[in-house]
Amino acid sequence: MGKNLTKRSEDYSKWYNELVVKADLAENSGVRGCMVIKPYGYAIWEKMQAALDAMFKETGHENAYFPIFIPKSYLSKEASHVEGFAKECAVVTHYRLKNAEDGSGIVVDETAKLEEELIVRPTSETIIWDTYRRWIQSYRDLPLKINQWANVVRWEMRTRLFLRTAEFLWQEGHTAHATEKEAVEEAETILDIYANFAEGHMAVPVIRGTKTASERFAGALETYCIEALMQDGKALQAGTSHFLGQNFAKAFDVQFDTRDGQRDHVWATSWGVSTRLVGALIMTHSDDNGLVLPPKLAPIQVVVVPIYKGEAQLEAISTKVRPLLEALKARGISVKYDDRDTHKPGFKFNEYELKGVPVRVAIGPRDMENGTFEVARRDTFEKQVIASEGIVDHISDLLEEMQRAIFAKALDFRDTHITDVDSYEEFKEVLNSKGGFVSAHWDGTDATEQRIKDETKATIRCIPLNSVSDPGQCMVSGKPSPYRVIFAKAY
Amino acid sequence: MGKNLTKRSEDYSKWYNELVVKADLAENSGVRGCMVIKPYGYAIWEKMQAALDAMFKETGHENAYFPIFIPKSYLSKEASHVEGFAKECAVVTHYRLKNAEDGSGIVVDETAKLEEELIVRPTSETIIWDTYRRWIQSYRDLPLKINQWANVVRWEMRTRLFLRTAEFLWQEGHTAHATEKEAVEEAETILDIYANFAEGHMAVPVIRGTKTASERFAGALETYCIEALMQDGKALQAGTSHFLGQNFAKAFDVQFDTRDGQRDHVWATSWGVSTRLVGALIMTHSDDNGLVLPPKLAPIQVVVVPIYKGEAQLEAISTKVRPLLEALKARGISVKYDDRDTHKPGFKFNEYELKGVPVRVAIGPRDMENGTFEVARRDTFEKQVIASEGIVDHISDLLEEMQRAIFAKALDFRDTHITDVDSYEEFKEVLNSKGGFVSAHWDGTDATEQRIKDETKATIRCIPLNSVSDPGQCMVSGKPSPYRVIFAKAY
Repeated sequence: MGKNLTKRSEDYSKWYNELVVKADLAENSGVRGCMVIKPYGYAIWEKMQAALDAMFKETGHENAYFPIFIPKSYLSKEASHVEGFAKECAVVTHYRLKNAEDGSGIVVDETAKLEEELIVRPTSETIIWDTYRRWIQSYRDLPLKINQWANVVRWEMRTRLFLRTAEFLWQEGHTAHATEKEAVEEAETILDIYANFAEGHMAVPVIRGTKTASERFAGALETYCIEALMQDGKALQAGTSHFLGQNFAKAFDVQFDTRDGQRDHVWATSWGVSTRLVGALIMTHSDDNGLVLPPKLAPIQVVVVPIYKGEAQLEAISTKVRPLLEALKARGISVKYDDRDTHKPGFKFNEYELKGVPVRVAIGPRDMENGTFEVARRDTFEKQVIASEGIVDHISDLLEEMQRAIFAKALDFRDTHITDVDSYEEFKEVLNSKGGFVSAHWDGTDATEQRIKDETKATIRCIPLNSVSDPGQCMVSGKPSPYRVIFAKAY
Repeated sequence: MGKNLTKRSEDYSKWYNELVVKADLAENSGVRGCMVIKPYGYAIWEKMQAALDAMFKETGHENAYFPIFIPKSYLSKEASHVEGFAKECAVVTHYRLKNAEDGSGIVVDETAKLEEELIVRPTSETIIWDTYRRWIQSYRDLPLKINQWANVVRWEMRTRLFLRTAEFLWQEGHTAHATEKEAVEEAETILDIYANFAEGHMAVPVIRGTKTASERFAGALETYCIEALMQDGKALQAGTSHFLGQNFAKAFDVQFDTRDGQRDHVWATSWGVSTRLVGALIMTHSDDNGLVLPPKLAPIQVVVVPIYKGEAQLEAISTKVRPLLEALKARGISVKYDDRDTHKPGFKFNEYELKGVPVRVAIGPRDMENGTFEVARRDTFEKQVIASEGIVDHISDLLEEMQRAIFAKALDFRDTHITDVDSYEEFKEVLNSKGGFVSAHWDGTDATEQRIKDETKATIRCIPLNSVSDPGQCMVSGKPSPYRVIFAKAY
């Protein structure tokens, strides 16, 4: 269709990279590993932010903002935390540039060296818990439920637009509670929000679960996650929520007067989702013609394209279209009227397919005669001719129907790509043929997990929540296993 | 009134610092010069963002996101730009930490040194113009009107919460145009948006003008600004919009095919407002009892406080209050019902005065008998007893009236603090007695401007827009001057 997009079946990875660039979502910048998020891509992120932010606020969270810099000594206070992040830290060592004395240009002023290096935050637990020490004295100050929208930096060596970048945008929630029970409940509440957002807005089905010890966040006692499946059969971790126990409260000495007059360390959670979700959205739904966006996250939900010859015809069509645009806007539907005279309708159709605009409305001379519009949906390419009278209701219903259909399609794909296996041979065979999630018994040891990873590149994505008792034997060691866990190769 | 707030008349600066902390707006962090914006302060910033973002979008701007890091060589490409920012740059030199070999802790890994240092953006012209080179080929790609919400870092040595911090939040717009005229119009359109926002939302009157050459943004041909006046008679620059000419297009080689088949460099603007506006808001309206917030930017517009003895009375009051809360929310008014039993009404009244909640509604046993509420406004402390039937309309009208009154009061203060002077003696006398804006003739030279600054600490805040011809003589040199300019001591 003239988009010169590599087919998914040819090279899924190349298809993804090309699509991100051609659909004007993002591109690489002149700074290694850092991307530029272009307006169309950023508009998707803004829609995600708005929906998530409302969900956080409805559940009693407030936004705040903490410094981008973390003194090196803070990062070091929680031992496993620094261990997890030390290898990918951007370090600020100086605070001034100057003209080189030999006139060769601008250089770092060596006399302006920081006494203590500052780390550009890879995540904010340490600077936030250093602050919480001042905010929390008593059980009356709890719970403290704060979220931050921010940029973070992790010096990744192999980067990919949206999926893995040195700088990315995210939200990070950090909460403090009086009891372990409350903190665990908070981590689970957030996992529900993430799962509901993924399924309800992104139309991406997810498996909820917990991570194994080796895959936990650095400093967490439990990491809850949602795992999605991409069209190439690889898994993608779409969000995590951590129960941190009292680790950070102890590292930063955050104690409080309990209701019954004791002193105790505070219980903590942290949780985040990032611009990585944009990558997940693209990879779950899009096709060889370009993006497919669920209506709830589409920056433009409807585009109207006039098909005309000459000024007079365009004017007549525009007069007919104007009330439609107003009526759609009044329903809260975002609509664009593309009456550019520099491009042909065919070019425009191509462009909006590439950009995944859910509904395309075309109107030409015959429609003018018949009092109709041609309505095409992006996901299935189905077209219908609709009478003017019912057009607004039709489009409104169609957007809802498409949101459901896009989810149903992804769910069907996901469900047909969960395979139960009982032997290691079968496990390897399934991984290499159809891929997807593989559900198998595991003996619960790091050693077996590591061996499977080394031999197959598959990792345990999660231990599904609410697993029913289903005793069996580890497919590798034959040792007893209480329930199946979910393996996959992953992004 | 039990708030232990220093009086403005005693020590304005101390009053400000105490107020910011006591009203839970922000506090200093463990990182030199970087603040923590607390939830209540951040909620004000979110309201500012929402209003500005809508105004930018209405005028055809789109949001995007560019990397936080700027390669040192980029910054150096525009000579006056790097000159302006080199002295306050946070410089990233390494990308990894490691365990010290002597076991003394975590240290910078010297083997992970960047080939080229990265600057944490102090502003993004250079990284953005490096990107625009790829985006702009033809006049068809213009205008390009992009905004970014981001954090920036300028290594300030003397910092103050909101007013001057090493890291701050802001928006920065960066636009590209085919003609000089269009770019100038854009810079002026944005100045209008800033002025309308300051006056219409913040209730802060501003003077619109242009900066003198010495006060221009580093790399600009013209800097437009809005200048506000604080209660201590000092000026505060509240927003700037820069006409950059072709400086950045030339530095980054951004050329385009013009409509008539030529090649030309693109014309540019950039513009920004920051969390500094929160400081301006506080300093313009607040009083010795705490914050005074214009209703449009107040996170909580109305608080309802029950006055009761015992559970039964509280329950009866709550039953009466609930429909009021619902009705206010339905009108889009943010309301909080404070039925905490841990604090007395007097304590709550104090707290909401300190936090500048515009309208306080109290209801006690006598109100229950009479079918009334007591309504108090924060700006004037006036109280009225209002019958239940008309309460929602009354509050809605009162919020609008308060928005107007708060602006009128600030405008009156500002207008009585603009003084025309014709001699340097009088200039100095006015500066030291009442302060404020001083309107005087100036000969247009850097030398005179610098001398006045050295001798009086006053700077030229702006050359007002649309100055009528008003020839006179420079108050210092006696040389001819076409119109008066505005001087003040400034933040």
